[in-house]
Amino acid sequence: MPRYYRYLGELLDENVERISSNELSVRMKVTASQIRQDLNNFGGFGQQGYGYNVQYLYDEIGKILGLDRRHNIIVLGAGNMGQALAKYVKFEKRGFVIRALFDVNPKLTDTSIRGIPVYNIRELASYVRSNRVDIAVLALPKENAAEAAKQLVDLGIKAIWNFAHLDLDVPDDVVVENVHLSDSLMQLSYNIVRRKSEKKNN
Amino acid sequence: MPRYYRYLGELLDENVERISSNELSVRMKVTASQIRQDLNNFGGFGQQGYGYNVQYLYDEIGKILGLDRRHNIIVLGAGNMGQALAKYVKFEKRGFVIRALFDVNPKLTDTSIRGIPVYNIRELASYVRSNRVDIAVLALPKENAAEAAKQLVDLGIKAIWNFAHLDLDVPDDVVVENVHLSDSLMQLSYNIVRRKSEKKNN
Repeated sequence: MPRYYRYLGELLDENVERISSNELSVRMKVTASQIRQDLNNFGGFGQQGYGYNVQYLYDEIGKILGLDRRHNIIVLGAGNMGQALAKYVKFEKRGFVIRALFDVNPKLTDTSIRGIPVYNIRELASYVRSNRVDIAVLALPKENAAEAAKQLVDLGIKAIWNFAHLDLDVPDDVVVENVHLSDSLMQLSYNIVRRKSEKKNN
Repeated sequence: MPRYYRYLGELLDENVERISSNELSVRMKVTASQIRQDLNNFGGFGQQGYGYNVQYLYDEIGKILGLDRRHNIIVLGAGNMGQALAKYVKFEKRGFVIRALFDVNPKLTDTSIRGIPVYNIRELASYVRSNRVDIAVLALPKENAAEAAKQLVDLGIKAIWNFAHLDLDVPDDVVVENVHLSDSLMQLSYNIVRRKSEKKNN
């Protein structure tokens, strides 16, 4: 769904008003039948023979993705990754608003990043109790991440965006989305090695 | 494979010498038969009834992942994400060494980040011609990323780690690994919305 949303946004930028599943299929490099199946599951936006209304489809998928509401976000860890996320303004435009960062480093606490306050991690519990938090970002070293995740779950947080280099063990009602940068870089490296050995064998 | 490598590294940290596919299966939450199948494909490390030698498996998978060699990396875009990657020392320990960053912003060019020089993007071609570059990272706004990718391909770069918010159109012999942060965040949001509506319907 996020990928559809991205491609539909690009079509809107190009002032495309309608698109058939076949045209979308070529752009997105998936089969037209896959597209019809995916989009039918989400309420049947298409009209046979007319293609999809791009703006309508974009807006409807936006709602399905929860982009019609505001998400209050906190970031645990104000190191390189936490700071980069806090400085990134594009998320905010989509309704993903970072409200606070938390860190153990006394050099960082009580400062702010792009106007967003950095608190001592000790203040996490009291912050969560008195502010609505929809998403917590884990941008901590892996050594501290498991315990932090447990604390977040105990505090009632239901969604974690995890940048720490481990898989979290959380209850079923907590949603986790992982960004494992090291895994991604190693996957790239693996594909490089494989490509080279394929070449050698040809 | 990167995920196996990560879990085996954790086992080594815990001084575990041998592990059966069943034990690994419980930890990684995949089936034991999946594990046996994956690891058999990679040279049959296991011994029936004895389990896997963790250190041996870790080293062999490391080689498969290309971690026994040094990868020279350049980063296009010295903004938030490019800087965060340049400051991140853990990649370097694994042999992924960032050698240079490139940017259009004159405030950034001719500075350095953690000792890594930031060059003007105009110098990219001459840099690539006179230095070995194994991986190029795209940490640019999406508006500039497609053209930059084309230039990298023309310069003979065979591996791109793409953080830009678009899918790259590159020849088959170029390996691409995407990190689409916005897609990941929207996927999280989508799962939050879905979870809530499931709850309501129960």
